[in-house]
Amino acid sequence: MIFITKKLEFCASHRLYNPEFSDEKNQATFGLCNNPNGHGHNYTLEVTVCGEVVEDTGMVLDLKALKGLVQNEVIDKVDHKNLNVDVSFLTGIIPTAENLAIKFWDLLEPRIQGGRLYQIKLFESDRNFVIYRGENCEGLD
Amino acid sequence: MIFITKKLEFCASHRLYNPEFSDEKNQATFGLCNNPNGHGHNYTLEVTVCGEVVEDTGMVLDLKALKGLVQNEVIDKVDHKNLNVDVSFLTGIIPTAENLAIKFWDLLEPRIQGGRLYQIKLFESDRNFVIYRGENCEGLD
Amino acid sequence: MIFITKKLEFCASHRLYNPEFSDEKNQATFGLCNNPNGHGHNYTLEVTVCGEVVEDTGMVLDLKALKGLVQNEVIDKVDHKNLNVDVSFLTGIIPTAENLAIKFWDLLEPRIQGGRLYQIKLFESDRNFVIYRGENCEGLD
Amino acid sequence: MIFITKKLEFCASHRLYNPEFSDEKNQATFGLCNNPNGHGHNYTLEVTVCGEVVEDTGMVLDLKALKGLVQNEVIDKVDHKNLNVDVSFLTGIIPTAENLAIKFWDLLEPRIQGGRLYQIKLFESDRNFVIYRGENCEGLD
Amino acid sequence: MIFITKKLEFCASHRLYNPEFSDEKNQATFGLCNNPNGHGHNYTLEVTVCGEVVEDTGMVLDLKALKGLVQNEVIDKVDHKNLNVDVSFLTGIIPTAENLAIKFWDLLEPRIQGGRLYQIKLFESDRNFVIYRGENCEGLD
Amino acid sequence: MIFITKKLEFCASHRLYNPEFSDEKNQATFGLCNNPNGHGHNYTLEVTVCGEVVEDTGMVLDLKALKGLVQNEVIDKVDHKNLNVDVSFLTGIIPTAENLAIKFWDLLEPRIQGGRLYQIKLFESDRNFVIYRGENCEGLD
Repeated sequence: MIFITKKLEFCASHRLYNPEFSDEKNQATFGLCNNPNGHGHNYTLEVTVCGEVVEDTGMVLDLKALKGLVQNEVIDKVDHKNLNVDVSFLTGIIPTAENLAIKFWDLLEPRIQGGRLYQIKLFESDRNFVIYRGENCEGLD
Repeated sequence: MIFITKKLEFCASHRLYNPEFSDEKNQATFGLCNNPNGHGHNYTLEVTVCGEVVEDTGMVLDLKALKGLVQNEVIDKVDHKNLNVDVSFLTGIIPTAENLAIKFWDLLEPRIQGGRLYQIKLFESDRNFVIYRGENCEGLD
Repeated sequence: MIFITKKLEFCASHRLYNPEFSDEKNQATFGLCNNPNGHGHNYTLEVTVCGEVVEDTGMVLDLKALKGLVQNEVIDKVDHKNLNVDVSFLTGIIPTAENLAIKFWDLLEPRIQGGRLYQIKLFESDRNFVIYRGENCEGLD
Repeated sequence: MIFITKKLEFCASHRLYNPEFSDEKNQATFGLCNNPNGHGHNYTLEVTVCGEVVEDTGMVLDLKALKGLVQNEVIDKVDHKNLNVDVSFLTGIIPTAENLAIKFWDLLEPRIQGGRLYQIKLFESDRNFVIYRGENCEGLD
Repeated sequence: MIFITKKLEFCASHRLYNPEFSDEKNQATFGLCNNPNGHGHNYTLEVTVCGEVVEDTGMVLDLKALKGLVQNEVIDKVDHKNLNVDVSFLTGIIPTAENLAIKFWDLLEPRIQGGRLYQIKLFESDRNFVIYRGENCEGLD
Repeated sequence: MIFITKKLEFCASHRLYNPEFSDEKNQATFGLCNNPNGHGHNYTLEVTVCGEVVEDTGMVLDLKALKGLVQNEVIDKVDHKNLNVDVSFLTGIIPTAENLAIKFWDLLEPRIQGGRLYQIKLFESDRNFVIYRGENCEGLD
């Protein structure tokens, strides 16, 4: 088994707040990220698939196809967007890095061909990033 | 003469559009950056000062003081902000990287102590960046 | 379960040697790192916590609180320090990257709130780094 | 147990094709990478070894020795080379990143001293990389 | 005047040799880069244009148009190619980083709209790069 | 004219203080960098030479020779060293980045063959760096 990763980027704006919280609680919980007019990031997304190497190609899967899938299903929907209002699959969700990673997993996992999705790694900045490996990973790593 | 640079970061959202343009012209001019609800970036700012080395310190200037100045005058005003609406010194200005760099220069240039401001370098992403050296640099470099 | 990482940096000096070794054995074991007057590094520390996403915040934990904890418990004690003589929790320990990572784990693991410490990753340089996941990780990964 | 990683680099050219495929199938399978005259990359190789910290050195193993081993067994054989024709241990193998990682594992795994090889991570570019952990890792991570 | 830079990447193979040199002289001159079957790199190209900021757009020029120009005129012609045999504008030229930068300048300089080409910066690796500013820059910088 | 740059790295420790200053003045001037037992950095050094491209090699100069020169004259003397006490050419000098850059220039400038030294760029960290272009550069750039 081998793990292969494709890195892509997008830029987007967001505001972190829970509409059911008071203003004070939103500020205490989300701090600077609660700025009412939002802020933004250059996000980096690393999608890792695992599988066996196919002998007559030397590859786990067609990396161009994987790139196209991630581009179509994720990047084109979030790039240069406001994550609170422009993205249908994020409606009603607080657009933290954690929630983005989980939603990206849910979108991509059933569509990967030639391997299975192993990991979503999402950098909100060089200094903050999250990893999600699906619901069944607990206890393994 | 020596050049000394301090790098800092901030994240912000913006939308590029000219209120005097039609929607069509805004779209044609600014493309993805014209998304009505905005998008955002992790910006990297490099401030370069030039001057003589002071013999009994071995330094051009106090780099902590320079960092504090840039933090107070620029970073605290734009970090986790919406550049179209939250920043008083950007009122009425299209918040392109070019315009940000010029405004940061105008804010910092008169306040530098122990040298003179040589260059503002602003990265909107790893792939796009601008440099501004003030109005008098033309023809020198 | 999701994994969230905060990256911080510090710079420090150290000398690698074992006072019970002869000079020759210290030199053979530690090479350039045995220079009697020491040398130094810009270290990068990545602290990874894992936990469930809290539904009404969309976060595993308060990343600002995590950053504050690592800053107070680790960074402030080692930054701009000589690791052989200035740091009480390193007394009597050879300050290799391996030992630093273990000591940082021991300091942070009982203090993490809102998740559990999963991993300490410490870069001594861009080319050398270590990972520690505690004593109970063996056989898992 | 601790994980220690050494990063090294090499540059090489390759062409991806299977001599048993038709030209059309090679083109469909490998795309741009099938250019008959080849292309190339700056590869980055990260070799990770795991083991216990030896108490009187504070180290898992001698990192200089690990670097020397990887340099001799891998880097010197592939650096500034054409991977399709210049490297004896790659004869008859399509030089994809996946196959390179497996071959590097096979070369290094029996030769590591003072720990066991945990992982080979090979970057073909900043945007594409593979990880291999040997044949026995399946199901663990 | 402001300077705006677009960064793009390509990967290619090359061999450095002069057909008029003896094998010995080629080896002495080009060393590892003279490997008969070639080697390769991930190149990074930074194209810098300078000009005045246009007031009603806040931009020097349309960065998408600049990207499209560099993509069409340079990247598409050299990406995933062998620079010794696949690129018509390099025929008869030793494909060093120096010569590539000069040729890229010659291709792009007359085609830039909305500013003038200021600089070509070409990284052959993270550790080696060249800068070219045209024939008239001497003595200025 | 073309500019060619070679990047190398070293790690070292230092303490910033002026023995003619009082303890209080040293602390006020140098802050954390005045820690009596020192601290350290991974330094990155970029040496830029400019010259004409030699037609029958396509190169300004032999980059291996440049690398060897910088390695011998600079890196081997400062790598894994204490800059306050281990380096003869720094005796009596406060080892700030500014002073290091000037001393490296003075060592290298007369020894460059096949071009002339244009610039020394020294990174003390990713966030702080200095540039020196010799005594005659003033007013040019």
